[in-house]
Formats: sequence, structure tokens, C-alpha cells
Amino acid sequence: MRLPRPGPGIGQKLTVRQELACALRILARVGWRENLSGHVTVASHDGGMFCNPWGIWWEEVRASDILHLDADGEIITGRWDVTPAVFLHTELHRARADAAVVVHNHPYYATLLASMHERPQMVHQNSCIFDDEIAFVDEYGGIEDVNDGTWLATQIGNASGILLAHHGAIVTAPTIPEACYKATTFERMCRLTYDTLAAGRKPEEIPADARAALKPLLRQNTPQAYWDGAIRMLLRDEPEVLT
Amino acid sequence: MRLPRPGPGIGQKLTVRQELACALRILARVGWRENLSGHVTVASHDGGMFCNPWGIWWEEVRASDILHLDADGEIITGRWDVTPAVFLHTELHRARADAAVVVHNHPYYATLLASMHERPQMVHQNSCIFDDEIAFVDEYGGIEDVNDGTWLATQIGNASGILLAHHGAIVTAPTIPEACYKATTFERMCRLTYDTLAAGRKPEEIPADARAALKPLLRQNTPQAYWDGAIRMLLRDEPEVLT
Amino acid sequence: MRLPRPGPGIGQKLTVRQELACALRILARVGWRENLSGHVTVASHDGGMFCNPWGIWWEEVRASDILHLDADGEIITGRWDVTPAVFLHTELHRARADAAVVVHNHPYYATLLASMHERPQMVHQNSCIFDDEIAFVDEYGGIEDVNDGTWLATQIGNASGILLAHHGAIVTAPTIPEACYKATTFERMCRLTYDTLAAGRKPEEIPADARAALKPLLRQNTPQAYWDGAIRMLLRDEPEVLT
Amino acid sequence: MRLPRPGPGIGQKLTVRQELACALRILARVGWRENLSGHVTVASHDGGMFCNPWGIWWEEVRASDILHLDADGEIITGRWDVTPAVFLHTELHRARADAAVVVHNHPYYATLLASMHERPQMVHQNSCIFDDEIAFVDEYGGIEDVNDGTWLATQIGNASGILLAHHGAIVTAPTIPEACYKATTFERMCRLTYDTLAAGRKPEEIPADARAALKPLLRQNTPQAYWDGAIRMLLRDEPEVLT
Repeated sequence: MRLPRPGPGIGQKLTVRQELACALRILARVGWRENLSGHVTVASHDGGMFCNPWGIWWEEVRASDILHLDADGEIITGRWDVTPAVFLHTELHRARADAAVVVHNHPYYATLLASMHERPQMVHQNSCIFDDEIAFVDEYGGIEDVNDGTWLATQIGNASGILLAHHGAIVTAPTIPEACYKATTFERMCRLTYDTLAAGRKPEEIPADARAALKPLLRQNTPQAYWDGAIRMLLRDEPEVLT
Repeated sequence: MRLPRPGPGIGQKLTVRQELACALRILARVGWRENLSGHVTVASHDGGMFCNPWGIWWEEVRASDILHLDADGEIITGRWDVTPAVFLHTELHRARADAAVVVHNHPYYATLLASMHERPQMVHQNSCIFDDEIAFVDEYGGIEDVNDGTWLATQIGNASGILLAHHGAIVTAPTIPEACYKATTFERMCRLTYDTLAAGRKPEEIPADARAALKPLLRQNTPQAYWDGAIRMLLRDEPEVLT
Repeated sequence: MRLPRPGPGIGQKLTVRQELACALRILARVGWRENLSGHVTVASHDGGMFCNPWGIWWEEVRASDILHLDADGEIITGRWDVTPAVFLHTELHRARADAAVVVHNHPYYATLLASMHERPQMVHQNSCIFDDEIAFVDEYGGIEDVNDGTWLATQIGNASGILLAHHGAIVTAPTIPEACYKATTFERMCRLTYDTLAAGRKPEEIPADARAALKPLLRQNTPQAYWDGAIRMLLRDEPEVLT
Repeated sequence: MRLPRPGPGIGQKLTVRQELACALRILARVGWRENLSGHVTVASHDGGMFCNPWGIWWEEVRASDILHLDADGEIITGRWDVTPAVFLHTELHRARADAAVVVHNHPYYATLLASMHERPQMVHQNSCIFDDEIAFVDEYGGIEDVNDGTWLATQIGNASGILLAHHGAIVTAPTIPEACYKATTFERMCRLTYDTLAAGRKPEEIPADARAALKPLLRQNTPQAYWDGAIRMLLRDEPEVLT
């Protein structure tokens, strides 16, 4: 399929802290959170990462609230504390260069499937961005130290869409736009799967060859265009996110 | 049934570009989209069509963003690119003079039924506007060229409410107001059908003769009145759509 | 149970036209409508009635849009036309002095149950305001003339919460506040019933003697307090409704 | 697990009346109410309690509307009347020093489960804040006097998350922030339980030892952080709540 030319963009260059603050609010707008739970990390060039602070809701975070952490999750700069579950992120970043962005929270339908011990099924074309990259981590009792984080990273392997039983979801991507697009798509995939099961039907996945063909197409231009439009609309309504 | 006199109207004459931009935002407001996906085309008097640009969300589009395309989907005027899937539209316009407006996206309940391989059922009187005009296209792997578009138009035949398996929906109509009204009604028909199935019941359709009698009544005045009110409320909140 | 003293009220006296315009917007806010469908009539002292005009959405109507009709549904004063289905109202007002307010539309869960041929069940205490006043009208093909309206009024009998198969709902009450409160409660009763059925359970109604005891209590003070608060919040946001 | 440092707080000291008015609006925002139903009481140092007035919706209440009651539910100060069902609160406060805050209303999923005679199940980690503290009160016909209140308190025992058959829910906590957090979590637990049942599955609870380990962790810092963020966002939009 022909690659479309980029759209209007956002008319300015954002810092990583600004992009992360925007991502948190965009994901909150699509319901990708349970109250104040959840954290998103973005790998930084120094081997560390940026992270939202503990104790601030995703929909109210500003760029100046974002923390800079080292590779072990220790705070380098930032006014607020970091989540004690930061090892969920540090060890996944250490293990996976492609997972530059790690999103974790408890969106409703992902959480529902996770509590039912059901895997999301690729019944819709857009879900195929997760082809061969879905994992279900069955035993999960909290990530309290480095060892827990290492164990979790091993369970996750190469997956980018992960359900944690009785807990929530993780989505990974190489960039912030792709992470936002994939997180939104993951929750919709979980809802489609749940609703199919609730109707007493077995979800019928798209055939494997079609899934494999769709995956690279879906990763090409759509995540950036998704992001640009979401940013434009967010900045129109809540420009203080950049401060 | 007596035909009611028109209501207050909208107090101004809109260009087709303005009407199309309004239609996209009205449909976004009723949830008729998945993120930035989807396109709506309106046949123009020169044999071409107007189309929303790739890379702009339906809820942020303005009249000046609308593209003018020729009959083959090539851009005549416009600042932005067109979707690579434009052949879904060009070949349907070529085949069907009545389908002056072609709406395509992935609204939730239509997408859910399409992924379950279920047809929407006319269990509610307003659904009868689609009487004898529903199609389910079972094999669908993307519309990447003219041949794909021609094949799809053949599968669609004379239908105006179409589900694309594992993908989404198409609604057609002779006018923009009717296309908006029918698209809204189609998604509601899909939701009613899904919820009936989810309760373990077989949807009981309205009898064929009643459906046939209701269809012309539903097409008479309601679409224009739906449109006028939706426009009045949209322009009150988002007047920039016309720019 | 002790009767509580009235709350703060609304601080002004509204005309019937103003009250009806407010009722339409309040019901639209709780989702009690399908697009621009539906009509609410309020009996007037001259034996006629007030009615919302055809072609204006419930959420945009103003007091000056309200029509005054005679007992046969002919327009006495008003800028816009009346629904051709006005006989649904005229003959019910003629038959039932207690039904001074008649609300009709297609709220989602009522419409869903009506399409499934299921009656709403009183599984929640507040539903008992409809005790012994629920009807399901099984054969319904549109109300196009006085004879249709008379037939429908006969089918309805003394009911105040009515489902019309494959169509929608009617709620009646002696006052506008009670009609709004009952309509809201009716839709919630339908949703509770549907969700119970969707879980594969038989709805378990509150016992008959408890229902009968609750009904007069629910009609006492709650409708007026519901109305006053709904009006206060509506006028804060949309004061133009009174114009 | 390490205890995180507190976040930014709310930058001012609120009175109990202000906190209670905020709590009512926060709970209304998350859908924890049926119309104008429901009441929240907060024990006061004089052995009495603060309570929202009868006849004002939760989303419109202000600090100056809050009533001060004595231990028997009689009004000490306040412009409006108290609910006749106040004995639901007075006798629970009398019996339970830990239940300094008592929240009662009819949130949708709690009400649905209560009408289906189903207990909420702890299928998600956050639900474990209710471990060993869930009660289902099976026979319930209204709380009209002290005897009814005493009977109800006996049925509730040490529970902090209670379903009342065919009626609604009660949540108790020692502080206003914890009461808000627990109420939100209780409704989500009920929704997860219902959706699991609706899919024809038996809810699989987290094992007892894991539940017991999670419970104190969930009560530590999260309720205060939930509250602080919810207050910050509420005061940004609706500062008049404090007046």
C-alpha cells in the first residue's frame, strides 16, 4: 500500500518531558487508567528514563512534574517521588532496547480479561499491530524489587501487549506516538474480545498470514498521525500541560 | 402519514466543503470513528469527489482541509494527502449514482458484529431505512488499488449499509444529511443486534411488509431535520469548522 | 416514613412552556431520546396541550419553540409544525385525566427490551413507582390517525410505564416533575432488567406487598426534589432554555 | 513495599464541611449516585455527625449546605432537612468507631449485583482493600427508625463494603479520603464481577493469603493521593463547592 504524506503536524518541537506529559493526558482521555494508578517511562539517552511522579493523576500532570531517573530507578531530578513499582520498568528497559516506552496501568477491559485469565484475540485488523507480540503473565504478586522486575521481563519476552493476571496491562513501543496508538488499540482489542466472549462466541482471529502482512503497515504512518491529531486537540483544550 | 413542514433550518447556505467538515464532526460526536481512521466522500458535479484528508481526526477537521479529487482519486486541490484506500470510494461512486455520499470507518458495534460475522437485524422501526439494503462482505483484506475497489463495489451491489468482516462499516446515501442520519441509525442497529445476541436471544426482525412500508417514510423528512439540528448545535460550540 | 421539608427550590416561577422546554433538555441529558425523535405533551387548562415542535432536537429547544395545541392536536399557536404522530398523545390525554404529561421517545434500554419483547421488572426499590402500572403493547405499526390513537390508549389502560414493541417507550404522570423522575427511573429499570437477562438470570422482583408499600412513598417528595435540582443545574449551564 | 513520599497536596486546609461537599461531588463525577438519592455522614468530635441535606443533588452541593446533626440524627445547624433514612447512619456510627465515614447510594453496578443477589468478588488486586469486609444484607425494607438502623448495623457487623438487596450500597472508612477511594473501588469491583458473570464465567478470586497481604498496602498512601488529585481537579473546575 502507498505511504501517505505526513499531515499538518503540531507546529512546534516538544521536549521529551512535554511529550510524556501529553501522552499521559491523552491516555487518560481514552480511559486508559484506574484513578491515579499507573506509570509510563521513556528511555533517555543517558541510559536512564523519564517517568511520571507518584501521587499525581495522569489527567493533571504537567511537563515540570516529570521525573528523570537513572537505570536503577533512582531519582536524578524531579520534585516528587517515583512509584515503588518502578522495577516493572527498569528491568524491561534493561532487557529490551526496542521497548523504549513502557506503559502500565489498569484500563477496564484489559483488567477484566486479565481477571478472567483470557488473552486478547486479534479479531480486528488494527489489532494486528500486536501480531505475535501478546503475552499473558499468569502469576503476579506485585513488583517490589529488582528480582521481581527481572522475573517479569523474562515472562514478557518479546511481547509488546501484556496482560498481568488480576492486575492490568503493559504496552511497549519504540516511540511515544506508537506507545499511545498501541495502548489505545490494545484496550479496544480487549473490549472486542470480551464482548465476543460475553455473547457466547469463540473469537475468530484474522488468519496468521493476513495478520503478519498487516502488522508492518499499521506501524508505518498511523501512530504518528494519531499522535499529531491527539496533541493538537489536547493543546487546544489544556495548553498548561506543556508547563 | 402526513408530511410535517420543515423546521427552523440553519439560517445560512453552506458549501459542500463546509457540509462535509460538519458531517465528519457530527459523526465523530456520535462515536462513529476509531481514532483518526475513516473517510467520507461526496460526489462533485465534475465527476470527481470531495474527501477528508488523511492524517486529520474527524473531530478537528475544517472546511479548508477538505480535498477535491478526480474520479480516480487523484488530488485536484487540497493541502493534504488522501487515504491510500481511496479506491473503496472511487469505484463505489463509479458504480452507483445513488451513492453520492460514501461513509467509511470502524464504529464500535458495527466493528464488533463484523468481527463476529453477524449481520445487523432490523429489530427497531428506524432500522427499516436499511430494508433490503444490508450487505456483509465476508472476505476483505484491504483496498489497495482499483481492482480491489471494483471487486468491493460488486460485493456491495445495491446495499447502503455494509459490514466488512474484521474491519468496519460503509454507509451510503444520496445526500450528506441522509448519510449522517443513516450512519447513526446503522450503528444503533448494530448495538441493538449485539445486545440481543449477548442476552442469548435470536433477534426478531420487524415483518417484511412493515419494513417495506416504513422505509420511504423514514427517508422523507427526518434526515434533513436530523441534520439541521445537529448543525445548529455544532456551530454553536465549534464555529471554526466552517473555516 | 417521615416526610422531609422541601429543599431550596429554584428561586423563580416558570411558565408551563418554560417547564416543558426544561424537561426536554433534562431528559436529553439523561439520554432519554434517539436523535431528534420523540415528543412530550402537557395538558393545558383549556382542554388542549403544550407540545415540543417537530424538527427541533430536545437538547436545543427553548420555551418560545413550544406549541400550543387543541384537544385534537391542531396548532393554536406556535412557529413550527407538530409531529404527525400527535394522536399518540391526544387520545391518551382524552382517556386519562391523571396522564396530564405524556412522554414518548426511544431511550436505548427501553427500546432494546421492547425489541426483545421483554417487560421491565421491578428488581430495584425505585422501580416500584411503576407498581401495577406497566404495559407492553405488542402490536404497533405507527400512530397515524385518531383511530390509531384510540386503539393505543385502550391498550395502555391505566399504565404509566409502557413499552411499544420494536419502537420505544411512553411514560405518563400528573405533573412535569413526576414525569421526568419516572422517565429516568423507567429507563434505569429497563437497563437493570436487560443486564440481569444478559447474565442469564431470571429477574427477581421485589415482593408485591413491598412494591405496593413503596409506591406512594416514592411519589411523595422525590419527584419535586429531583426536578428542582435538575432545573438548578440546567439553568446554570443553559439559561437560554427559558427564552 | 517502600512507602512513597507524599505528592503535592492541595495547598490549603479544608474544613470538614468543605471536605464533605467535595467528596459528594467527586463521587457524583464517578457515577456513584442515582439522581438525587444518597447520603454521606462524617462523625464529628462532639459525638454527632456532618451530613449532606435532603433535596440537593450531590453534584451541586456546597460546604454551606452541609448539616450538623447530633448522634440521634437531629439537626443542630443547617438550612435544609435531613433524609428520613438517617438512622442508616446514626446506628452504624454508634456501633463502629472505625466507620467515621458512611457513604450510601445506589451506584449502577452495585445496585445491579444487589438486585441479582450476587456478592462482589475480589478478582482484581485493588479490590483486596475490602478483604474480609464484604457483607450482603438480604432482607431490607427501608430504614425508617432507630430499630431499623440498629438491626442493619448488626447485619453489617465489621464489613466496610455492603450490598443491600434490591436497593444499593454502603461503604465505610475511617477518613473521607479513604471513603472516596474505597467507594470508587467498590463500584469497579461490582462491575468486574458482573461482567465476569455476564460472560458465563465463575469469578476467580485472588487467593486468601495474597488478599490479606495486599489489604494494608492499599490502605496506606493511595487513598490520600487519590483524594488530593481529585480535589485539585475539582477545585480547578468548580471552586464554588467550598462556599
